[in-house]
Order: sequence, then C-alpha cells, then structure tokens
Amino acid sequence: MKAVYDQAHWQRHPSTELDGGQLVTPYESPQRAEYVKTSVTEAAIVDWLPPKDFGLAPITRVHDPDYIDFLASCWQQWQDTGKPGEAIPAVWPARRMQQVVPQDIDGKLGYYSFAAETSISGGTWEAAYASSQVALTAAEVVLGGESAFGLCRPPGHHAAYDYYGGYCFINNAAVCAQYFRDKGDAKVAILDIDFHHGNGTQDIFYQRDDVHFFSLHGDPALVFPHFTGYENERGAGAGEGANRNWVYGPGTPFSQWQHGLSEALRLIEQGGFDRLIISLGVDTFEHDPISFFKLTSEDYLKVGEVIAQASLPTLFLLEGGYAVDAIGVNVANVLKGFKQALKNE
Amino acid sequence: MKAVYDQAHWQRHPSTELDGGQLVTPYESPQRAEYVKTSVTEAAIVDWLPPKDFGLAPITRVHDPDYIDFLASCWQQWQDTGKPGEAIPAVWPARRMQQVVPQDIDGKLGYYSFAAETSISGGTWEAAYASSQVALTAAEVVLGGESAFGLCRPPGHHAAYDYYGGYCFINNAAVCAQYFRDKGDAKVAILDIDFHHGNGTQDIFYQRDDVHFFSLHGDPALVFPHFTGYENERGAGAGEGANRNWVYGPGTPFSQWQHGLSEALRLIEQGGFDRLIISLGVDTFEHDPISFFKLTSEDYLKVGEVIAQASLPTLFLLEGGYAVDAIGVNVANVLKGFKQALKNE
Repeated sequence: MKAVYDQAHWQRHPSTELDGGQLVTPYESPQRAEYVKTSVTEAAIVDWLPPKDFGLAPITRVHDPDYIDFLASCWQQWQDTGKPGEAIPAVWPARRMQQVVPQDIDGKLGYYSFAAETSISGGTWEAAYASSQVALTAAEVVLGGESAFGLCRPPGHHAAYDYYGGYCFINNAAVCAQYFRDKGDAKVAILDIDFHHGNGTQDIFYQRDDVHFFSLHGDPALVFPHFTGYENERGAGAGEGANRNWVYGPGTPFSQWQHGLSEALRLIEQGGFDRLIISLGVDTFEHDPISFFKLTSEDYLKVGEVIAQASLPTLFLLEGGYAVDAIGVNVANVLKGFKQALKNE
Repeated sequence: MKAVYDQAHWQRHPSTELDGGQLVTPYESPQRAEYVKTSVTEAAIVDWLPPKDFGLAPITRVHDPDYIDFLASCWQQWQDTGKPGEAIPAVWPARRMQQVVPQDIDGKLGYYSFAAETSISGGTWEAAYASSQVALTAAEVVLGGESAFGLCRPPGHHAAYDYYGGYCFINNAAVCAQYFRDKGDAKVAILDIDFHHGNGTQDIFYQRDDVHFFSLHGDPALVFPHFTGYENERGAGAGEGANRNWVYGPGTPFSQWQHGLSEALRLIEQGGFDRLIISLGVDTFEHDPISFFKLTSEDYLKVGEVIAQASLPTLFLLEGGYAVDAIGVNVANVLKGFKQALKNE
C-alpha cells in the first residue's frame, strides 16, 4: 500500500484553542502526524510517496472560491489590523441575520467559520493546502486501482463548502471524491469513522446522488459539531437517501459501534460504487481526551478488516484522533487489518 | 426627570472578553454604570428612584421563554461540567445546519448566542434581570407622561428574540416597548443612537408595525454586529417600512451624523407614536476605544435637544459607551440638553 506524507503540515502550529472558556494549547498538534508517520512506518505496511502538486483547481471544485481566497489571505489581513492574538471569530451570522460577507476581517472570520476553537495562525493556509495535495497524491494512486493512505494534517471533514472549524479548512475527502468523479468515476462512497460528525463532507454532497456519505459518530446533541449529524439528515433533492448518519452515546464500545459500521459497509457493497474514501479519525479510541467511545487499539484491526469487505480501491485519509501517543498505533492497525484482509481474500 | 439605578448591576463582572484573539478584561465594566451614576447625579437633573420588580412576564413577551430559562441556568450548567473558564460559545449553527437546541451546554451556548466576546459568568443572569427591572421601573414613570432614564447595565439592544451577544442578554428597550403596548399604547418608537446597530431590537420587531425601530450606527460591513444594520433592512411583512437604518463610516462627526438623527426625528414626529424609547449609547464619542465616530461631549447636549423635538414622553435607556471616564458626562449631557429643550418649549 502506498502512503503520502508532507512535512509542510508543521506550518500549522497555532498556540491557542478556545476550550472551556480558556485559550489552551491545541489538541490538534503537529506531533499527531509524526506519531502516525512513525507507527505506520514501523508497521512496515506502506511505501511512502512524496506529495505532488495538483494546484487549486481540484479544491475549488468543492469549495467556494471566495472562501479559499479568504483562507489564503486571512492571516495577512488579521495581522494588518495589528491584533495581538491568533485569528478567532467573535461574531457570526445567526438566525434571521443577513448572510453577507463583511469587509472587515472580524466579519469575514465569522462568515467563513462555524466554530471558534480553531485559531488561524501563520502557516495555516500553507499547511491546509499541502494537506489537500497529500490527499490528492494518494487519490491518484487509488485511481490506478490500488488502495492508499494520505496522512493529512490539518484534517478536513468539518470544512464545508464555505466555512471552516473543528481544526479543518479544506475538505480533503470531498476534494478527492470530486477528483474521482472528474476522472471518470460514476459513483463514489465516503465513509467517515471519526468520532465527530463529518459535517463538512455532508454539507458539500447533501444534494448530490453521485457521492454518498456515511458517518458513524457521537450524538451531536451531546458533542461537537452539535448542529449536524442527526439521523434524520438523509440528504435532499437528488441526494435524498444518499446521506446516512449513525449516532452513538457515551461509552459506546466496538461491539455496539460495529453494527453501524457493518450496516454502512453493506450499503457500500450493494451501492455500485467505483471507489471508497475513508475519513479515518481514531478519536473513537477509549483514551481519547475529547471523545467518549471505547474502541481499543486491537479493535482498529477489525475496523480495517470490515472496510476491506467492500472490495473497492480505498483511499484512507487521516482526520481526528487526539490521544497522541496511541493514535499512531490505532491508524496503523486500521491499515494493517485492511491489508491483511485483502491478502486473505 | 426621574432616573432608576440598581447596584445589582455589579453582579455582572466577567473577567474575560474574547478580543483580537486574546482573552482581555471586558470593555463593558461595572465602572461604566458608576461613572454615569456620578455624572448624572452631579448634573442635578434627575431624582433617583429605586427599582421595582415586575417579574419575568414582561421579559418573555419579547424573548423566547426557553432562551430566558437558558440564561437563568447557563452558569450553573457550565460549572457542572467542570470547565475552568467563563462560558464562551465555541460552535454555532451556521448556514445549512439544523437550528436545534442541543442537550450539552456547549451546544446550547452556540444556539443561544451570536457572538463570543461576551463571556457569561456568575451573577450575569441576576444583573441582566435587574437591568430589565430598572428599565421597566423607568418605563412605568414614562407611562405616566413624564420622561425618565433607566441606567441599565448590562445593556440590551444586541439581545434578540433568542440569542445574546454584544454584552447584551435581555433587550431592555424591547421589553419596555412591549410593556407600553400592553398598557394601551397603539404605537411606540425606538430610536437607537448607540454606535453599534441594535440588531436585537430590530430582530424582535422586524415584522411588526406597532413598534417602529430607527437606528444610526457604524457601517456593519466594517464593525460589529457585521451581519445586520444595513440600510436595505426595512422590515418585513406587516413591519415593512417600520425599520430604518442609517449607516456611517469611520471618522463621522456630529455635523454629518445629525442628518440621520434629524431624519429619524422627523419620521418620529410624523408617525403618530404614543411614546419614544431612546437606546442611549455614547460610544459615538470621539475617544471611544472600540468605535469610530467623532462626537464630542458638547455634541451630546445637542443630541438631547433634537430628541426633545418629538415632544413625546421619552424613556432613555443606557446601552454602550466604553471610554469610561467620559461616558458619564456624555450621558448627562444628553439628558441635560433634552431637559433644557423641554423647558424652552
């Protein structure tokens, strides 16, 4: 299996995250990617490829070009005002307000975000862009029929058509799904197994029938992102029925969670998809500091095995996972389980 | 002229405000009210009355009762989770998300707010409630035909039907307008001369013809609240035409700003209103730290004179103003100019 990594992710290293009414050191740290790199390398299950540059075009296929311009220029605009901290939105267009893009950077931040925990700092755009190119490089491999892993950082699944949040800026999974479509695939499946609902991915494809979205996650009534991820969200218009959410409560172990996983896989197997993208978060881990599922490191081997049942060229893209010393092993175990199951077929 | 003050405002004393990506000491401080109290007292233009208690009923006439329950219980819920800081929203229902009230306090905070600068701390609800009762006590005086001043803190004009922000929790002006209506007035005018758009007041009466809203403020493309206050917002449904915004840019002096004031007063004089409420912010002041108009302390005398032209029983309610050592004089000057003009009639 091929895998792609780019040290450019280090350019994303904010010093603040708004959490519990305080500015704390961000959970989404550069070390996360290094733990994953090390463990996946040690497991000897991948060959590392350098990233290629596919440019902005595949990104603006799924994101508002004005939003991408904003991301690319935000830090400079923020600094130009002389503000002392990192860029954090403080006001947003609530119910019954106008959805307009203000001129001022404070207004733009609020318009183009849905969460305030994610500070924008110098290098954020560069790292987010590089992360999307890591994803696309791995996607090109998968286009050839092999499966591959993109070690994306920052992650992507919370980034919607025109807003960021949840540590995500460019939706890597959505960019790659569209890339597959543009390269000739008729139908692509995205399975999101991160602890948090992939609201951004859902948003981008909600009214489309050519990219189906399946997500297992913590009950949004209790956890981030709170306002999407409910089971009644099943797509709209042409996308009616092409969006599925499985919601679980505190303490959910693998034995319970796997029912949703199996149901999703059954739908994927029967859905006539050309390719599969996995939004691979491992914050479902029992010791994750900001989540409440109870998957063990061993369980991730089984997760990989179940995913292999789809018998599709599969693109794994890193999303969340914050118990830093364990996420490497857990990601490696998913890939290991997947690879082993393919071998046994 | 009667005026009402309640030292209960001191219970609102948060230690954090999200500003420029940092948590700073809030601009909206208890000292503000004391400066105003002192200057108005020294000007010898009012008799101070103690506040009465009108209960919750007048509040839930203009606010979602669930929102009021949230405000009253928020601090306890936040503390129950063991979070270390003051309560600040970090995720909110953006475009295309569900407008649902989550169970979790983080979700509730995002649902019931539109801005993150305003931390909720212990005593916030008690002070906000007391502020609304100060307003109602002054309103009762105005119902008798006299004019009066409610020294409200926290302020109110940014609080909408079901969300807080901009230092505001209960919309004192809206509560009093509805109180006037419920006591028999057919038509009430609210004139908002705070530097910032009174988005909450506009929101509450946007589709109504019985309470008209007039606001002069800094261009929301440039300043808070960014997503309301544009001149194309003129009311809807039955309220079509009953909402008017005058927008001014950086450096606006009284000589320019007074054109909007005069136009608003002309509309108020011709509108057949029973009573007038002034949302009295003095952050239009030339030295205000977070605003960009250039009114001088002398100008506020003229503001009071112009308002007196409406010849209506007038309820002045304190809103913003952050150059703390000057706001007392500026508020007193508005009341002085108003009183003097009445005497000269």
